[in-house]
Amino acid sequence: MMCVPRWPVWLFCWRAACVQGASVRQRMWAGPSRIPELGGLRGVWGTSPLVRRGSSSASSRAPEVTLTPERYPVRRLPFSVVSEDDLAALEHIVPGRVITDPEELEAPNVDWLRMVRGSSKVLLRPRTTQEVAHILRYCHERNLAVNPQGGNTGMVGGSTPVFDEIIVSTALMNQVLSFHDVSGVLVCQAGCVLEALSQYVEERGFVMPLDLGAKGSCHIGGNVATNAGGLRFLRYGSLRGTVLGLEVVLANGTVLNCLTSLRKDNTGYDLKQLFIGSEGTLGVITAVSILCPPKPSAVNVAFLGCPGFAEVLQTFRTCRAMLGEILSAFEFMDAECMKLVRLHLGLSCPVQESPFYVLVETAGSGPGHDAEKLGCFLEQVLDSGLVTDGTLGSDERRIKMLWALRERITEALSCDGYVYKYDLSLPLDRLYDLVGDLRARLGPSAKRVVGYGHLGDGNLHLNVTAETFSASLLGTLEPYVYEWTAGQRGQRQRRARPGLQEEGRPWLQQAPRGAAAHEAAQGPPGPQGHPEPLQDAAHPHL
Amino acid sequence: MMCVPRWPVWLFCWRAACVQGASVRQRMWAGPSRIPELGGLRGVWGTSPLVRRGSSSASSRAPEVTLTPERYPVRRLPFSVVSEDDLAALEHIVPGRVITDPEELEAPNVDWLRMVRGSSKVLLRPRTTQEVAHILRYCHERNLAVNPQGGNTGMVGGSTPVFDEIIVSTALMNQVLSFHDVSGVLVCQAGCVLEALSQYVEERGFVMPLDLGAKGSCHIGGNVATNAGGLRFLRYGSLRGTVLGLEVVLANGTVLNCLTSLRKDNTGYDLKQLFIGSEGTLGVITAVSILCPPKPSAVNVAFLGCPGFAEVLQTFRTCRAMLGEILSAFEFMDAECMKLVRLHLGLSCPVQESPFYVLVETAGSGPGHDAEKLGCFLEQVLDSGLVTDGTLGSDERRIKMLWALRERITEALSCDGYVYKYDLSLPLDRLYDLVGDLRARLGPSAKRVVGYGHLGDGNLHLNVTAETFSASLLGTLEPYVYEWTAGQRGQRQRRARPGLQEEGRPWLQQAPRGAAAHEAAQGPPGPQGHPEPLQDAAHPHL
Repeated sequence: MMCVPRWPVWLFCWRAACVQGASVRQRMWAGPSRIPELGGLRGVWGTSPLVRRGSSSASSRAPEVTLTPERYPVRRLPFSVVSEDDLAALEHIVPGRVITDPEELEAPNVDWLRMVRGSSKVLLRPRTTQEVAHILRYCHERNLAVNPQGGNTGMVGGSTPVFDEIIVSTALMNQVLSFHDVSGVLVCQAGCVLEALSQYVEERGFVMPLDLGAKGSCHIGGNVATNAGGLRFLRYGSLRGTVLGLEVVLANGTVLNCLTSLRKDNTGYDLKQLFIGSEGTLGVITAVSILCPPKPSAVNVAFLGCPGFAEVLQTFRTCRAMLGEILSAFEFMDAECMKLVRLHLGLSCPVQESPFYVLVETAGSGPGHDAEKLGCFLEQVLDSGLVTDGTLGSDERRIKMLWALRERITEALSCDGYVYKYDLSLPLDRLYDLVGDLRARLGPSAKRVVGYGHLGDGNLHLNVTAETFSASLLGTLEPYVYEWTAGQRGQRQRRARPGLQEEGRPWLQQAPRGAAAHEAAQGPPGPQGHPEPLQDAAHPHL
Repeated sequence: MMCVPRWPVWLFCWRAACVQGASVRQRMWAGPSRIPELGGLRGVWGTSPLVRRGSSSASSRAPEVTLTPERYPVRRLPFSVVSEDDLAALEHIVPGRVITDPEELEAPNVDWLRMVRGSSKVLLRPRTTQEVAHILRYCHERNLAVNPQGGNTGMVGGSTPVFDEIIVSTALMNQVLSFHDVSGVLVCQAGCVLEALSQYVEERGFVMPLDLGAKGSCHIGGNVATNAGGLRFLRYGSLRGTVLGLEVVLANGTVLNCLTSLRKDNTGYDLKQLFIGSEGTLGVITAVSILCPPKPSAVNVAFLGCPGFAEVLQTFRTCRAMLGEILSAFEFMDAECMKLVRLHLGLSCPVQESPFYVLVETAGSGPGHDAEKLGCFLEQVLDSGLVTDGTLGSDERRIKMLWALRERITEALSCDGYVYKYDLSLPLDRLYDLVGDLRARLGPSAKRVVGYGHLGDGNLHLNVTAETFSASLLGTLEPYVYEWTAGQRGQRQRRARPGLQEEGRPWLQQAPRGAAAHEAAQGPPGPQGHPEPLQDAAHPHL
């Protein structure tokens, strides 16, 4: 049984007050021109979909992916269908950038995990905010559904059309608007690729406050729209703190200019916050002002083996106390994860086999000081038995090699069969309990139950693999996983389709809606058999 | 001419959607039971108002302060007047905690700078969220205006009643609800005093992510409601990133539970953000969940003299590069500030007289490492002539002494005469230009024009003193200062009454409003002769 999310009333009040046009979602997509050639291992997410897509022609692969409405019982709302007149009008708005070639439209219609497929007939490539505003105003007036798309690197199918929505790609909105080399404030268009921005600010002595495996393809606009966490969350915190300003186009074409670049700004309500993590449901982000921290001059990575999860937690405590301000990441993975990356990717474990592995990264301004601190920490955890074996990396090659063990788990999982993915925030003490619990509950019906994640953020990536998709296995998993999580006062980070996941990206179930379509959301389905509304524990209980 | 702020339409839409009761403001007040005895110098703000109030009886001093409606042309909206029946009903809700003694009501009716005075006849001291909800529901039904109050340490008169609003004090809501000693997540009631929380978490190896001079009196709820910045902003960032959750009571008594304590939570829109910095206009914050960083084991302070503002900026650049992750504060003050603290407070300058002074604080986990980094930095800035003289402090007494030079400027200013205060966010390069510009513009009509502030945050505290209040001087200052700031794409951090200021606290012009009073705001007036609406540059341009 599919559930239709019960939308909270206030959401409609808000929409009625502020959005009077076609609702839009911020999506991510990498057009061919945005494909980077990443040499390193850390760009797995960015390169992987492209490598896979590149391994056979898109046209020969696309038919493999079932159309979303054929797989899920979703219903197209009464939007208009794009006419020849519409195409002519759109051509007038973005001349030469109205894509209708079916071949070119196949990639942006499919998510990179190849789980969902829309049937959009038109993709637009605006270059400016004004073009986006004109597009949305026109679509609003014509009651045409719109699907904004950035790098299309999301892992819950949130960045592809469901039906025939017009795709508005931010791929050509890739200009840096300003950078201040004292304050580190970067202002740029939403379609800038994260890795390109990283390179830009690193040349100027700064780093981006977020880093993702998908950095080679993902757009900063999509990062903000999904409130991406990623690998630097522990050190630099949430985008809610580092994003200083946004420019957003509302569904009716209104441009909302909250693009302040001041570090501190207390004038009035902070409306931009509503758009951070709202997945484009309230508007299309067209420009971002973001605070970049100074670039650390030294980075070190330690990869450690731990005998149990209690030791992992205690290692984290010790780490926080001894590494303090230079600690930049604390990731963990279980032995099953290591088996996966070894089996499917041929990576080798650099330490003795252990029930758990921990990756600790430091980033600081004093190479000697950092090495000394890390040395003291390692001595302490080895002497106390919290860690049984470990290895260090401080040059770029080895750092990438060690990070690959953690970052390529997603890729290895996708080689293991059908994957049921969950991304949960849990209290640290109970972070891993669900994994063992599920192993016992599922028994041989699951091929593998694995757990890994950003321990510093309280984030568990729970994955269950099986040879093929099974409705009965799904029924055993859900709503059990959600209820277990809720019982710990935890949160699932998004409502993913079964078998789809993203890391650090929320996904709101919301279909494109027109001015006349303020009714129950109808977008891609949520987890089957899970009757609770989208209004989650993090939402207010009114 | 007073201006009535033109409220943006969306605000009313939002209010209509979400707030159906008497509007409320988050205020701050320290009841007698909350008065701390701070021995150190850093608690000046906390102790100063209390010392001043303690120096003569409240009853003998209160008449000195003109009633706000007598000074400003404000108009009471048609709220009900508190009746005997109301008092009986309120007594039923908070038995024994309905204060009507005129003597006890004098302090909460006056702001600590003694610039504005309300005439509230009733103060309530709820202990629980449910009591707050009952109070607001009752007042909403009876159309009674409400004035929430925390520590009453605000510097723009935003925490005191304007007319006869019922004061709802959070003073008894001072319980820590939970603390997690691995994650550092603190959950507490809104009336906890910041210093008490600091002490609580420091005993457990953590620090509060914010620090203010007013910490001895200010309440965490008021800090969040005003989005206080303060002295740790540079290091730990905005409350928008560190506040994980809030519990808020809306004006009609509805309890909004966004009190998640997870570090990462992407489920749905982040509604709590609307309440951060909204000054209680949308609801009363009753509980806060906040992320505390680990306590640094070493703190050092350097106090330096710089020959010019260009050198101050270059010192900041050097500092960021060389001190990196251990830099925790970078404050500056001009020579006039030093003269003031010397003249009025008898403090002595610890370095050679200079046109500018800079205070650099480091906080890290390795005392030796930090001292070494600081030593290299000092050598560099002294050798290059950016700094002409400097002194260091690493023990608590000396650190407090050095900090006092910066923190007690506000106090020294208040001894200098009538003070016109402005708190501006500006691009770093132009941060100090306005001070020189104003000195030339005002000439002998001003006694002193001084500039100081949090350079790391791009924040200038601009203060002009004169023997007495002068409407013509004010006319020369405003709207000039605001227009100059807007010309730099800067922001004033709040709309303060002439002569009133707060540090890092916004102040929205909004009077308490009842269910039937959704009309133009009528609260305490904004700057005279400054006709722009509350909707500022940071607000969206629709």
